[in-house]
Amino acid sequence: MSSSFGKIFRLTTWGESHGPALGVVVEGCPAGLPLTVEDIQAQLDRRRVGQSKVTTPRNERDRAEVLSGIFEGVTTGAPISLITYNADVDSSKYENLRDVFRPGHADYTYWAKYGHRDHRGGGRSSARETWGRVAAGAIARKILATAGVDIFGFCREIGTIRAESFDRAEIERNIVRSPDPVAAEKMIEAVLAAKEANDSLGGIVEVHALNVPVGLGEPTFDKLDGLIGQAMLSIPAIKGVEIGGGFDVTKWRGSQANDSFTVIDGNVHTRSNNAGGTLGGLSTGEPIVVRLAVKPTSSVAQPQQTVDTSLQPREIVVEGRHDPSVCPRAVPVAEAMLANLLCDLYLRNRAARVDWPVG
Amino acid sequence: MSSSFGKIFRLTTWGESHGPALGVVVEGCPAGLPLTVEDIQAQLDRRRVGQSKVTTPRNERDRAEVLSGIFEGVTTGAPISLITYNADVDSSKYENLRDVFRPGHADYTYWAKYGHRDHRGGGRSSARETWGRVAAGAIARKILATAGVDIFGFCREIGTIRAESFDRAEIERNIVRSPDPVAAEKMIEAVLAAKEANDSLGGIVEVHALNVPVGLGEPTFDKLDGLIGQAMLSIPAIKGVEIGGGFDVTKWRGSQANDSFTVIDGNVHTRSNNAGGTLGGLSTGEPIVVRLAVKPTSSVAQPQQTVDTSLQPREIVVEGRHDPSVCPRAVPVAEAMLANLLCDLYLRNRAARVDWPVG
Amino acid sequence: MSSSFGKIFRLTTWGESHGPALGVVVEGCPAGLPLTVEDIQAQLDRRRVGQSKVTTPRNERDRAEVLSGIFEGVTTGAPISLITYNADVDSSKYENLRDVFRPGHADYTYWAKYGHRDHRGGGRSSARETWGRVAAGAIARKILATAGVDIFGFCREIGTIRAESFDRAEIERNIVRSPDPVAAEKMIEAVLAAKEANDSLGGIVEVHALNVPVGLGEPTFDKLDGLIGQAMLSIPAIKGVEIGGGFDVTKWRGSQANDSFTVIDGNVHTRSNNAGGTLGGLSTGEPIVVRLAVKPTSSVAQPQQTVDTSLQPREIVVEGRHDPSVCPRAVPVAEAMLANLLCDLYLRNRAARVDWPVG
Amino acid sequence: MSSSFGKIFRLTTWGESHGPALGVVVEGCPAGLPLTVEDIQAQLDRRRVGQSKVTTPRNERDRAEVLSGIFEGVTTGAPISLITYNADVDSSKYENLRDVFRPGHADYTYWAKYGHRDHRGGGRSSARETWGRVAAGAIARKILATAGVDIFGFCREIGTIRAESFDRAEIERNIVRSPDPVAAEKMIEAVLAAKEANDSLGGIVEVHALNVPVGLGEPTFDKLDGLIGQAMLSIPAIKGVEIGGGFDVTKWRGSQANDSFTVIDGNVHTRSNNAGGTLGGLSTGEPIVVRLAVKPTSSVAQPQQTVDTSLQPREIVVEGRHDPSVCPRAVPVAEAMLANLLCDLYLRNRAARVDWPVG
Repeated sequence: MSSSFGKIFRLTTWGESHGPALGVVVEGCPAGLPLTVEDIQAQLDRRRVGQSKVTTPRNERDRAEVLSGIFEGVTTGAPISLITYNADVDSSKYENLRDVFRPGHADYTYWAKYGHRDHRGGGRSSARETWGRVAAGAIARKILATAGVDIFGFCREIGTIRAESFDRAEIERNIVRSPDPVAAEKMIEAVLAAKEANDSLGGIVEVHALNVPVGLGEPTFDKLDGLIGQAMLSIPAIKGVEIGGGFDVTKWRGSQANDSFTVIDGNVHTRSNNAGGTLGGLSTGEPIVVRLAVKPTSSVAQPQQTVDTSLQPREIVVEGRHDPSVCPRAVPVAEAMLANLLCDLYLRNRAARVDWPVG
Repeated sequence: MSSSFGKIFRLTTWGESHGPALGVVVEGCPAGLPLTVEDIQAQLDRRRVGQSKVTTPRNERDRAEVLSGIFEGVTTGAPISLITYNADVDSSKYENLRDVFRPGHADYTYWAKYGHRDHRGGGRSSARETWGRVAAGAIARKILATAGVDIFGFCREIGTIRAESFDRAEIERNIVRSPDPVAAEKMIEAVLAAKEANDSLGGIVEVHALNVPVGLGEPTFDKLDGLIGQAMLSIPAIKGVEIGGGFDVTKWRGSQANDSFTVIDGNVHTRSNNAGGTLGGLSTGEPIVVRLAVKPTSSVAQPQQTVDTSLQPREIVVEGRHDPSVCPRAVPVAEAMLANLLCDLYLRNRAARVDWPVG
Repeated sequence: MSSSFGKIFRLTTWGESHGPALGVVVEGCPAGLPLTVEDIQAQLDRRRVGQSKVTTPRNERDRAEVLSGIFEGVTTGAPISLITYNADVDSSKYENLRDVFRPGHADYTYWAKYGHRDHRGGGRSSARETWGRVAAGAIARKILATAGVDIFGFCREIGTIRAESFDRAEIERNIVRSPDPVAAEKMIEAVLAAKEANDSLGGIVEVHALNVPVGLGEPTFDKLDGLIGQAMLSIPAIKGVEIGGGFDVTKWRGSQANDSFTVIDGNVHTRSNNAGGTLGGLSTGEPIVVRLAVKPTSSVAQPQQTVDTSLQPREIVVEGRHDPSVCPRAVPVAEAMLANLLCDLYLRNRAARVDWPVG
Repeated sequence: MSSSFGKIFRLTTWGESHGPALGVVVEGCPAGLPLTVEDIQAQLDRRRVGQSKVTTPRNERDRAEVLSGIFEGVTTGAPISLITYNADVDSSKYENLRDVFRPGHADYTYWAKYGHRDHRGGGRSSARETWGRVAAGAIARKILATAGVDIFGFCREIGTIRAESFDRAEIERNIVRSPDPVAAEKMIEAVLAAKEANDSLGGIVEVHALNVPVGLGEPTFDKLDGLIGQAMLSIPAIKGVEIGGGFDVTKWRGSQANDSFTVIDGNVHTRSNNAGGTLGGLSTGEPIVVRLAVKPTSSVAQPQQTVDTSLQPREIVVEGRHDPSVCPRAVPVAEAMLANLLCDLYLRNRAARVDWPVG
C-alpha cells in the first residue's frame, strides 16, 4: 500500500482512525522557509470536526506536533514529521461492524484485498487520514505564497442547492462554506433536514488557485490536469472532477470553447477561462478552477441491506457520529491537495530550463 | 519533462508529431506472455486517422515495429520498445504558426515554460503522442485478459446528441463508436455540420472494464479512482472525469447512493453500481465505469484572435487536417489508458499479502 | 531531501539527533504478517549504543512504539509508523559547534547546500537516523524469513586486525562482533588503545544472506549489485563496497574467477562463489556476500584544524560521546539495509512472470 | 524489469545484443541546451569496439540517430529518443548456447527468473546495453559543462599492473587508457598474453569529476555515495566500488583520515581529499574520486564445466569475439554513469532552497 504523493515535495501519510496517532512525513520541503506549528494548525482547524451543527460532534482536537525538519523556526530541508494523537476515540460503536461490510465504505474491498483489517472507525480508510494532507498542505501554501499563489475553495452545491452569487469574503463566514449567503441558508436547512431523516447529502466543491506561475505541470502523463485528477479523486467520497468548463464544454463548439489570447499589462492572458487555467497540461497563469463531485456521506443511521464476512445477509444501521454532508470539511482538504500538487510542480519546474539561475 | 506512467508496468512515450518517429518503451511487462506485432497493430488501427469521413484525412499508416523485449513470440521481461515512423508529414502548413499561439492549444504554455519548442503539428503536445499509449495498452490488455478482464469504450455523447440505448455490438459498426445506432446517425450528421461550419464538437466518452479482480488500487493516493483521474485527464482534450454515478450522485441522498451488498453464486456483489466499481479506492469486482469530458477540437478553420511571441495581436485561421470531433478516436485511447493502469495495479497487487504464492 | 528507500517495500526515515523523536514509515509491507513490537525491538537492541566499553556510553533507550499498520498482532497492509523519543539528549556540548565545520562530518556540506542546519549532535546527518533503518529491517527480515532467507553480519577487520577464522556462533558473543574469538581479543585491545589516544579506528564489515531465492534483482539499473551499492554506501561512514571476490578478483584471470555450474540435489549451484551470489544483477541462490569499508570515526577528541561559517580558521576538539570504532554497531545496520533491499526485490519479483499464481 | 535510472534526468535503456536495434530515452533534459548528434557520437566512439588490438574485432558502427527532443539544434525539454541499429550481428555462434549456462554470465539467473530468454549474444544482459548509458551521458556532460563540471576516467590497474604516474593527457593516447605510459605498455602486453592464453584480465577503473558544485546529493538514501554505488555496480562486470580513500582508509586512524578544512581564495577547501569529494552524502567541491573493481571477462575460449537447462553437465568453450579485458571500454561507461548521476543531482539541487531564484 503506497501512501505517498508527489515527486520532489512528497508527503507520506500514515495512521488509522482509532489507532494511537496519525501523521504525515513531508520530504523535499526546501530549506530556509520560516514555518511554525501555528501555520499548520491554522489549516488543520479548518478541517476539524465539531465545528458546527452541520458537522459531527466528535471532539478531535487534531493538535499537530512537529517532530523534525524545523530548527529555530526555519525549515532545514530535512523531512518534516507531523503527528497528532487520537483522543476521544470510542471504538465500542464499531465492534458490531467487525465482520460486516458497510455499504458505500471500503470494508469489503479491504477485506477482500488484505484479508485482515482494522475495522474501528474505518481504520486506514477513514477520512481521518486527510489530517496529514491538510497539514502538509499548510507547508505547501507557505512555499507557494513566496511566489504569490493564492488558493481557496468553497461549496458550489450542496444537494440540489447551488451558490449562484460569489463573494469570497462570505465563504468562511457561514458553516457550509458557501460564497452565496442566501444559498448558505438553504444549504444549512437542507443538511439539517437530511440529518433529521437519518440521511445525508452530497455536493460540489470548487477550488481556485490564483497567480499560479505559467508552465507548471509536465507533459505527458504528469500534466497539471492529470495530477489534479489524481489529487482530487484520491480524496475520500470524491467521484468526479472537472477543470474549467468541464462537462459543460462538451456541448459547445470549438469556436466558443477556445479562450482567445490577448495581452494585458505586457502579459499574455486569455479573454475567457473555459480551460480553467491549463493548456496542454501546463498552467496558463489564469485561475486554476477545479470542481469535485462529492458523494453523500455513506454512513447513514437507517437500516441497510448488506452481507458479512461469512457471506451471510445482514441488516445494519451505521451508528456513530458522522457529517450529514462532508462538503464543508472537504473544502480545506481539496485546497490542501491542490497546494501539495502545485508546490511539487513549482519545485519540479526549476529543472525545466538549462539556463535558469540557481544557487 | 516526465513522460512515464505506471510503477511496475511502466510506459514511457517519446516523439513529436512531425519528427522522424514516435514510440514507447514498456518496462515491467512480465515474461512469458505470447505477443505479436499484430496484437499491437490491431489496437493501433482503431486509433488511426483517416478511417472515415468524420476523422482527418491524413494518411498515417501508424505501423508498429517491435525493437526489443519479445523473443520467438514471447515476452522476455525486458523492456519492449515500439516505434512508428512518421510518414505523410506536411510541415509547411505549420510554418505560419511558428511564432503565434493557437487558442486552445499548448503553444503559449510550452513557449513560456521551455522557451523553445517544435511548433510543427503541435510537436510534443500533438495527440500523435497517444500512439504509444495505445500500443502499450494492447500489451496491457493481453496481460489483463489472462485474468479475464474485458475493456471497451464508446461515445456516450457527441455535442448535444446522447446515446440512449446500449448495444455493445453496435459500437464498432458505426464511425462514431455509438452503442445506439439511432443516435449514431444523428451524431454523424452533427459532426459533419460542424465541419461544414469550420467548427468542431466535443462529447462524452465512456469506458467500462468488466471482470476486474477485487482489490486493485492502493490506498491512499494511488486509489483506483485517483489513478483513473490521472490516466484520463492526461489524455489530450479531456477536461473532466467521473466514475459511476459521478456528478449526478451529488444530488442524491446517501441512502439512495449507497450500493447494498448481496451474495450471488457465492460471491459478494452490489445490487446497484453507483460507485462505478470502486470502494475506498479499490476495485469491487463490479464493472468499472468511467466517463470523460472531451472538449471540442481546438483547431477550427475560422478566424481567431490571438497574440504572437512578440506579444503582438494576431488573427489566425488554423488550417491543416483535423478531426471535427476527436471523440471517436479518443475511445481507443481511453480504453488503452484504463488497460495500462489496471495492468500496473494488477501486477502491484501481487505484493499485497505475505502469504500469496509466488514462483 | 529524499529520505526514502525501496519501490514496493519502501521506508522513509525522519528525525534529528537532538530533536524530540526519530522514526520511520514503512509502506508496502504485505498484509497478514504476524508482527510485534518485540520483533522490532530485538533488532534495535543490537544497534543500541552503550552496550559495552567499545561503544559510546550514551544511554539511548531506543524504545520503539508502533503507531499504525498492525492490528491485533498482524500487519494490515497499511503504512507502519514506528517512533522513538529522544531521551538523554545533551545538546550543550554542541553549542560551540554551531558555526564551525567538524572535519569528516557533514557540517560544511549541509551548511553550503541548505544554508540553515540543526547542528546539535549532527542533526539530520547523525547516525541516529539508522534507528529507522534497523526498525524497518526487522520487518523485512520477518517477511524474508517466510521464504527461508537468513541474514547475518560481522566485523571482518577492525583497523589492521583481521578475523581469520569463522564461527558464526562466536559473532554475538564478543563485543566487536568478530567471528574469530582470537581476533576479537586483539580488536578490542586495538579499539581501546585508539580511544585512549583520543583517536578512532575503521574496519571492514561483512554481511551474508543465505537461502536467497534465485532471480532477485532487476536488470538494468536495479541490478542486485547496484542496489546493494546504494543501500550500503548510504550508511554513514561507509566508503566502499564489494561483492564476492570484489577488488581481489580484479587480479585474477577469467578462467579462475568464473564459478562453474553444477547440480546438487536437483538444483543448480556453483562450485565456488567468487561472484558473491549475483550474476547479471540477479541473485544466484548462492550466499550473497558483501563487504563494507568503514572509515574511522570522524569525531576524535584531539585538536583539528578547520574553518567556521565566517570562513575564519579555527582549531576544534570534538568532545561528546562517540564510538571509537563504529564497526560493531554498523553490523546490524548493514544487515538491516540488506534485508530492506532483498525484501523489496522479493516483493517486486512477484511481477516477473505472467503465469505466476497470485491471490 | 526496470531499466530506468534517475529521478529528474532519467534514462531508460532498451534493446538486446542481437535484436534489430538498441536505444535510450532521456526524460528531463532541460530545454535550451544546444545539442547535436555529433556531441553524442563523440562519446559513443570512445565506447565502440574494434578500436584496437585489445578490444573485440566486432564491427559495430554504433551510429546514433536522434528521433525526438531536439529541434533546430536545441533541446525542447521533451524526451530525447536515441537509437542505433544493430549491424554486424552474427547469432550463429550463439546457437549452441541456447540451452546452456555460461559461467560468469547471466544465462542461468535470467532463465531461472524469466523462464524465457533471448540467448543470442547475451540478449538483454549484454554489455551492448551500455550504448544507451554513454549516449545519455553525453547529454549529461553538456548540461554539467554549463556549470564547469569536468569528468574523466582511466585504467588505474589491469590485472596486476598498476599505473603509478598520472598524466591526464596520456590517457586517450594509449589503447588501454592508462595515465602512465610506462604502465600502458605493460598492460597491453599483459592483455595480449591473456588473450593468447584464451583467458582474460580484470582491473581497476578510476573516474574523477572536477569542479562539482558543493551540495549535490541528498541525505539519506540518495546520498551521493549511495547513488554512485548504484550507478557503478549496475555496470556489467563491476564487483566493487570505493570512494576516495575507500578500503585503504579502513586501516587508518580518524585523525589521519579526516580532511581538515581551510580557505583558499575565499572558498572552503580541504587540505587532503581522503573523502573523495563527499561528506555526509553531499559533494564537497573537491574532486569526486571513484574506483571500480572490474572482473576479468567471463567469456574465455577454453573449456569450462557447466550445466544446461535440463540440469545435465556440459563442457563448453565460449567462442565469439570478446574483449580480453573490458577495462579500457569500461572507462567511458563509468564516466557516463557518473555524468548521468551528477546531472540528475544537479537538477534536483535546484529545489533545495526556498529562496533560490528561478525562471
